[in-house]
Amino acid sequence: MTATLRDLGEFELIRAITARFARGRDVLVGPGDDAAVLAAPDARVVVTTDLLLEGRHFRRDWSSGVDVGHKAAAQNLADVAAMGARPTGLFVGFAAPGDLTVDWALALADGLAAECASAGASVAGGDISSADAIMLGVTALGDLEGRAPVLRSGARPGDVVVLAGSVGRAEAGLALLTAGRGHDAGVDADAGVDAGWAGLVAAHRRPRPPYPLGPAFAAAGAHAMCDVSDGLVQDLGHIAAASQVRIDLDLAALAADGPLRSAAAELGADPLDWVLTGGEDHALVACLPPSAVIPAGCEQIGQVLPGAGVTLAGRPAVGRGGWSHFA
Amino acid sequence: MTATLRDLGEFELIRAITARFARGRDVLVGPGDDAAVLAAPDARVVVTTDLLLEGRHFRRDWSSGVDVGHKAAAQNLADVAAMGARPTGLFVGFAAPGDLTVDWALALADGLAAECASAGASVAGGDISSADAIMLGVTALGDLEGRAPVLRSGARPGDVVVLAGSVGRAEAGLALLTAGRGHDAGVDADAGVDAGWAGLVAAHRRPRPPYPLGPAFAAAGAHAMCDVSDGLVQDLGHIAAASQVRIDLDLAALAADGPLRSAAAELGADPLDWVLTGGEDHALVACLPPSAVIPAGCEQIGQVLPGAGVTLAGRPAVGRGGWSHFA
Repeated sequence: MTATLRDLGEFELIRAITARFARGRDVLVGPGDDAAVLAAPDARVVVTTDLLLEGRHFRRDWSSGVDVGHKAAAQNLADVAAMGARPTGLFVGFAAPGDLTVDWALALADGLAAECASAGASVAGGDISSADAIMLGVTALGDLEGRAPVLRSGARPGDVVVLAGSVGRAEAGLALLTAGRGHDAGVDADAGVDAGWAGLVAAHRRPRPPYPLGPAFAAAGAHAMCDVSDGLVQDLGHIAAASQVRIDLDLAALAADGPLRSAAAELGADPLDWVLTGGEDHALVACLPPSAVIPAGCEQIGQVLPGAGVTLAGRPAVGRGGWSHFA
Repeated sequence: MTATLRDLGEFELIRAITARFARGRDVLVGPGDDAAVLAAPDARVVVTTDLLLEGRHFRRDWSSGVDVGHKAAAQNLADVAAMGARPTGLFVGFAAPGDLTVDWALALADGLAAECASAGASVAGGDISSADAIMLGVTALGDLEGRAPVLRSGARPGDVVVLAGSVGRAEAGLALLTAGRGHDAGVDADAGVDAGWAGLVAAHRRPRPPYPLGPAFAAAGAHAMCDVSDGLVQDLGHIAAASQVRIDLDLAALAADGPLRSAAAELGADPLDWVLTGGEDHALVACLPPSAVIPAGCEQIGQVLPGAGVTLAGRPAVGRGGWSHFA
């Protein structure tokens, strides 16, 4: 029989989970006391928090415990990077039913730890509770290393809009899963699933935010930055509103790649929809002064102009709740 | 008709909620960007996180939105104080059904804000999601002001054990509510409920941790400290285990007061049970060197001896899951 959380009990579970977490250099006091103590060398700390609920933010039949761990960590660590900070620590409240397998919980811990490691951070504390469904409350912290935080409100006409990371791929992967066309696709591509599609499903399961680009954009003098979690048009819309500018996107720079186009053709979808409105890839998008040296691995996708809202090659692109095809 | 979250929509709800939060002096960037920025003047930051779930940690028919806000903030801010730190900021992930009234959500925000203010902190960020039941993921941060964190592992034989705040009262209040004997008791005592009992119910609804005593115990040279959230015997058991010492409690110092005794008599309970095993008052308990000046407002309740475990006037008192009557 596979052991469940109820079999193991709370204290043994905590012991087993925390044993998976390597203590990073910023963790001064780790799990096990009333609270943890984290280094904040810059004398300021960047903090963000998110809830992830089973059935709303992930499905256990579509994502493994490791996947959910990666995703939960990534979406918070990306927010830290989007301020221009280096991620340092992650704190995880975890609630689950007593009949959840211990293996799933340990896989979750492994995913959290691995994603933190890829961002240079570590899991430094948490909380465990019982619940009817799995839920996670994740908080990430980061260090600004002496730089000013990069807000959404600083974009200026003349800035170039630069994208790091992918957009639309996680949404396409979710569409494939929803259509029953990617359910069995392993991250490394299984038989029957086109290798390109497996990459889309993987993008849904384990987004790969470009963490180092957050500090790199800040160091390059970015005037504004955010992570793309609700879709490119909507998130850039927040920058446009906060900065009182217009952001015009370049259609050519946002052309969908082969896997996106073939998946869209198969599902009868518009790949540009995914690119413009798909969240959860956790790309970073920054507005840089035109004189800035654009960091390697990024692409200019638009420019900042006087005005308001987000436009696509000069035509209105934004509707409430995401992109709407221009009339 | 009373407006619901669904009527208001996510973005208006966020606007309405964040408008309730005064920005404290430690909040450098508040709600509204990818992440907040908090001052960490000490170059270290104390961090703790907890989940609170409707039906498990609170009931909407027993606690108002304001009550739940106070309680959610208090249980995390108390953990920060228990490290010897000054609470600075609170981050709240809030998930709720669409048919929850806006009034309840705003009352929650008011409770969070008021409890933060009473601890010298402020709500600095959060996240909102929809869910089938109300759930909160709360993270509190604090500043050590140059002091070493007070861990659970530093108690030494010869130390005196000192309590700040009440124990057993929240548990008694919950017992009254469970028995249908305090359901309608307002914080200010309603007709039909003895004033003393209303105070017990209030302790369940809005625990009052003695925040300033955390830094005060640390400044007084405390060797070990924790907050009492799982019951005095169990929480002191954690200190005893981590410090490899025995903690002996003084029965006389832990005598139940009038309201506890009368409520226990009414319900057929043992008031000492509540005192020894009742959590959620979020008192602070510290082990101080015998030479220390005990801060005002505290009481010595025991001493640290060589050995292991927690004893009550020399006799074994600890069982797994809480106190068990000595045989």
